[in-house]
Amino acid sequence: MNIKNIQKQLSDFANERDWDQFHNPKNLSMALSVEASELVEIFQWLTPEQAKVIMNTDEGEHVQEEMADIMIYLIRMADKLNVDLGSAVDDKIIKNGKRYPVSLSKGNAKKITI
Amino acid sequence: MNIKNIQKQLSDFANERDWDQFHNPKNLSMALSVEASELVEIFQWLTPEQAKVIMNTDEGEHVQEEMADIMIYLIRMADKLNVDLGSAVDDKIIKNGKRYPVSLSKGNAKKITI
Amino acid sequence: MNIKNIQKQLSDFANERDWDQFHNPKNLSMALSVEASELVEIFQWLTPEQAKVIMNTDEGEHVQEEMADIMIYLIRMADKLNVDLGSAVDDKIIKNGKRYPVSLSKGNAKKITI
Amino acid sequence: MNIKNIQKQLSDFANERDWDQFHNPKNLSMALSVEASELVEIFQWLTPEQAKVIMNTDEGEHVQEEMADIMIYLIRMADKLNVDLGSAVDDKIIKNGKRYPVSLSKGNAKKITI
Repeated sequence: MNIKNIQKQLSDFANERDWDQFHNPKNLSMALSVEASELVEIFQWLTPEQAKVIMNTDEGEHVQEEMADIMIYLIRMADKLNVDLGSAVDDKIIKNGKRYPVSLSKGNAKKITI
Repeated sequence: MNIKNIQKQLSDFANERDWDQFHNPKNLSMALSVEASELVEIFQWLTPEQAKVIMNTDEGEHVQEEMADIMIYLIRMADKLNVDLGSAVDDKIIKNGKRYPVSLSKGNAKKITI
Repeated sequence: MNIKNIQKQLSDFANERDWDQFHNPKNLSMALSVEASELVEIFQWLTPEQAKVIMNTDEGEHVQEEMADIMIYLIRMADKLNVDLGSAVDDKIIKNGKRYPVSLSKGNAKKITI
Repeated sequence: MNIKNIQKQLSDFANERDWDQFHNPKNLSMALSVEASELVEIFQWLTPEQAKVIMNTDEGEHVQEEMADIMIYLIRMADKLNVDLGSAVDDKIIKNGKRYPVSLSKGNAKKITI
């Protein structure tokens, strides 16, 4: 995924519509969490088993769109805050490895919360 | 960002800890929204002006980590659901362009909700 | 507010529709957070000043309905988990008083997170 | 539950700490959704069956506290917006009854979203 290229597209999109005025990090964090909840909404009444096969149902496209919306706001926010998402992810995976040593975390759901 | 490579790392990470059993799409959507709220929490009492300069404060690293957590769960979920995040984003940007024509959307916050 | 009475109404409502099967605490926590996000969505692009006068706009009824939805799911969840909401609130206010002593918390937004 | 009495306590609590300045409806909607996510976090890796017996585990008190936090912010917001929560709930239950007629909604999870 070419993050820089998407950031340019999203920036142009916002500027053309005079929406940049609304895109401060506080508002973007709200919009991001709203999109995350729209994804949750799709799964809220499903059993874990139904959730696993969601892409084979007529909700599949909806799932994909909500995931795209989350990605879009995350990339937009990274642009506004000058965060390098790739480096941030790399750093966090290393940190998580130290925080959850295999020996202590094996099969333990309580230890998962990151 | 090399999504495939990160997906492999996250999959290995989960398998080593026997966490794959917890990573159904329903649970991952919950975890993703929890991380999004942890980002919101940082901004909840700040003015929009304070939010804009958050990266210059001692909360900057925290912001970056929460953004990484969101990205990590989104990539993990895309792996479990076989969603191509790059294509999903491209498709959604095109769709948003049609949904929010420049002439009707200019400076109109009410029209922004995607 | 007569919580017991509302719980009876909500329980009857669910039973008449065979929805009780979906109302386990995990699913209800998801539904509750989705409703909370629908409230956030109303405010996401507003300035704090615009937010303060929301009830005088045509979004006022919408705000009231989303707040009702949150209350409804919270009361439903309290019923399913046998939680006495009134006592829980009383206990939490006392706890917050100890956690945030006036002398240390005065005007300090960072100390607010509960 | 005596909402008016709790509103008075919460208002005094905020005033004593100079926190009223942070309690505009936008910020309160964020805080409310953050608390809702803290409730979701408790359930995120549990099976529906484990979720049902949560009150018998050492997470029971935690659940009760997060539910109280949600209630507290909802009551605080109702105070700031002059919303009568009791009436709002009554109105919404009537509206839901019309929106989800028993005959069309029976056992149908897709129809539940409110």
